[in-house]
Amino acid sequence: MLNQNSKIMVDSIKRLLRRGATTNLRKIVEKTHAADLSIVFRSLSVANQLQLLHMIRDTEKKGILFSELDEDTFSALSNELALEDIVEVLEQMPSDDVADLIGRLPEEKSDAILEKMRKEGSEEIEGLLKYDDDTAGGIMVTDFIALPQDLTANEAIKQIQTEYHDVEMPFYLYVVDEYGKLVGVSSLRQLVVVSPETTLKQFMTTDVFAVGTDVDQEEVAKLVARYDILAVPVVDESNRLEGIVTVDDVIDIFRQEATEDMLKMAGVGDEYVETQSIYRSTKTRLPWLLASCAGGIMALFIIGRFEGTLYRFAYLAAFIPVIMGMGGNIGTQSSTIVVRGLATGRLNVRDFWRVVSKELAIGLILGGFYAVLIGTVAQVQYTVQMLALTVGLAVIISMTVAALVGSGVPLLLARINIDPAVATGPFVTTSIDIISVYCYFILATTLLGI
Amino acid sequence: MLNQNSKIMVDSIKRLLRRGATTNLRKIVEKTHAADLSIVFRSLSVANQLQLLHMIRDTEKKGILFSELDEDTFSALSNELALEDIVEVLEQMPSDDVADLIGRLPEEKSDAILEKMRKEGSEEIEGLLKYDDDTAGGIMVTDFIALPQDLTANEAIKQIQTEYHDVEMPFYLYVVDEYGKLVGVSSLRQLVVVSPETTLKQFMTTDVFAVGTDVDQEEVAKLVARYDILAVPVVDESNRLEGIVTVDDVIDIFRQEATEDMLKMAGVGDEYVETQSIYRSTKTRLPWLLASCAGGIMALFIIGRFEGTLYRFAYLAAFIPVIMGMGGNIGTQSSTIVVRGLATGRLNVRDFWRVVSKELAIGLILGGFYAVLIGTVAQVQYTVQMLALTVGLAVIISMTVAALVGSGVPLLLARINIDPAVATGPFVTTSIDIISVYCYFILATTLLGI
Repeated sequence: MLNQNSKIMVDSIKRLLRRGATTNLRKIVEKTHAADLSIVFRSLSVANQLQLLHMIRDTEKKGILFSELDEDTFSALSNELALEDIVEVLEQMPSDDVADLIGRLPEEKSDAILEKMRKEGSEEIEGLLKYDDDTAGGIMVTDFIALPQDLTANEAIKQIQTEYHDVEMPFYLYVVDEYGKLVGVSSLRQLVVVSPETTLKQFMTTDVFAVGTDVDQEEVAKLVARYDILAVPVVDESNRLEGIVTVDDVIDIFRQEATEDMLKMAGVGDEYVETQSIYRSTKTRLPWLLASCAGGIMALFIIGRFEGTLYRFAYLAAFIPVIMGMGGNIGTQSSTIVVRGLATGRLNVRDFWRVVSKELAIGLILGGFYAVLIGTVAQVQYTVQMLALTVGLAVIISMTVAALVGSGVPLLLARINIDPAVATGPFVTTSIDIISVYCYFILATTLLGI
Repeated sequence: MLNQNSKIMVDSIKRLLRRGATTNLRKIVEKTHAADLSIVFRSLSVANQLQLLHMIRDTEKKGILFSELDEDTFSALSNELALEDIVEVLEQMPSDDVADLIGRLPEEKSDAILEKMRKEGSEEIEGLLKYDDDTAGGIMVTDFIALPQDLTANEAIKQIQTEYHDVEMPFYLYVVDEYGKLVGVSSLRQLVVVSPETTLKQFMTTDVFAVGTDVDQEEVAKLVARYDILAVPVVDESNRLEGIVTVDDVIDIFRQEATEDMLKMAGVGDEYVETQSIYRSTKTRLPWLLASCAGGIMALFIIGRFEGTLYRFAYLAAFIPVIMGMGGNIGTQSSTIVVRGLATGRLNVRDFWRVVSKELAIGLILGGFYAVLIGTVAQVQYTVQMLALTVGLAVIISMTVAALVGSGVPLLLARINIDPAVATGPFVTTSIDIISVYCYFILATTLLGI
């Protein structure tokens, strides 16, 4: 559903709600994919949401809708729903989505739901909640096909028809030994192609990628992307199959990680979620601006020390923005290229010297170019040769240092296992600002003081 | 293969190459996934690359290696390979990867390859090259399973075994009518589950998502992500099935689009590719810095107009960095949140007023907070009340305007169908700089002049 269509749908559903045209509404709700309904829900009052929700007959569809709703909407809606209604839907959902959804609710509510599910014997969920949210264990689903290695192709097909008919995405048939340990993998297609009496052991592939439950979700996602596979099996310490991470979750991980990286680099914090709450947004963004504020105050004291110079040459102030701006912008270019290169695997911490020396060269070339350009402007405007020289030198120094800091800092952070995105944004910008301003005034005092 | 492992592998392969330990090398090459080999290749000389390449016996594996190599490496390697060797490998590759690979070569080379493939009758490739690179047609693969609707389940299984045994990812069985038009979809699992004499028409799903060949790849990717499907069929104007876009390509699209957005916002240009060439990098980054330079020069002229004020109150210069910095940073926060929200679909251009008014509120709150903080610093440092007031007001104005511009500009651009990421970075930063500086000096002249 593209943007235009979603607008049309929202408008017509609102109209029908106002008119109370239940039969028409029911038809639309029936025909619309739950993912699309979730977008409509965002623009509706909770009362209207409830009305539509009760029109959905398929519990599984309600589940998809729940998992597609954003945090605020789901939280508001769940307050109006009876506990047993929520639990009824959750029980039809893949376990990773349930864990995710419960994690988003206030603790009180989630405890109540878990308590209720526990009474009804859903151990699965509790098992999932014991793993960290962003590890393989936290994102795996537990419905997969695992078959004993001595089964024949024919028996395997029968077993799938009887026991596994409700597995969500049966891409791979995992083959396990008598202890439940993962020994191989096969596929539905292979089952259909081989002769019916062959045992799985004979035609399975024994070269299976598997990850431990505590592997970071980003590593799992990279594995799936690199090897173009549809699901990765997740195993415990003794190689027993615990679940699988499927490709649709991998897409979500990549989108989520990219979003987090961007927000971190912009200094919005990695926890930012689309929320309607001004209070929460402000709280997330306030501390990140402190770094920039601290940097600005340092720059203030540095410039303050050169007040004497400024009283003699007030025009020096006019060049502060352009010198800081050029440094800041080339620094952002360098750090973005490096942070993203590290995230996509195109750059490696081993490449430190190659990358940094390349950035040094680029900083010198671009710095030289803009030094001449801005120096010329200074000369034309103020006809003070030493000012033009000061400004030109300050630009080239600022841009070269910025390219070095912008590329070097994220690489160093990655090397000591600190997320390069998180510290790069505010840190790089602020330190470049301070260095630029300091060099500029030192140069000015020296050169103009002659 | 995680970073540490790749380092170990590169080192040991280099050692074996030096020693000329062919037997050992052959074993390693045989056992290593092509995607991992591509990483090793990056650190080797072309001569060594050729040596390893000739050790790969499986042509399909060579194909995966080719498509995983980065542009520079593949280009250098292909210069040393005979045309027929390249073509031999390309003929084993999925057609979308071939089109992609050929597109990366210099035109001369790609023409020669196409000429040779044409002679050998591979029309498929030429068909693909006629579609735009980033449309559904450009990224689809043409090996999919399409079955007539009157086939029985049993006949379908037989046909898959004989005709379609080499289809890369047989997730879905597409069902077509006698004109090749898409009428439904089914799955291998359904074939296995239904009784053998049922016809496809009887049990297929008729509600199929399909996209036209000219639909933008990002839209296709969003469709796959939203509905959690594994492949989307691509049809021509008369609904004839032309190909499918598979989920593994969707992952690549999302990663690529996220990278492009980040680079655009940092002002690196969307065409940036990881290249070793300093010249090419410089050329891409130079023009984007011009916007920032032009903005800086405008700020220069603005401040120049207030030279008289500066000669009287030189300390005004000290606050330029902090005022510009606070505006710039909150503006980057706002624009990143909006650009990313639009890209992931969590924000919609319809939400204009809701988003902008929320950002206005946040700008005022955060602006007020930092106005007090920085105003206090000004008061303590210079004990000039009017200066503290000027600085405080300038901070709150700068931050509020920045939040408005940062959120409003990308939303407006998106509404008139200009990519919000591309114009947001340099444009937003530069205009915020200019507005901040201007307001600051107007305030200073007015308040301090009293």
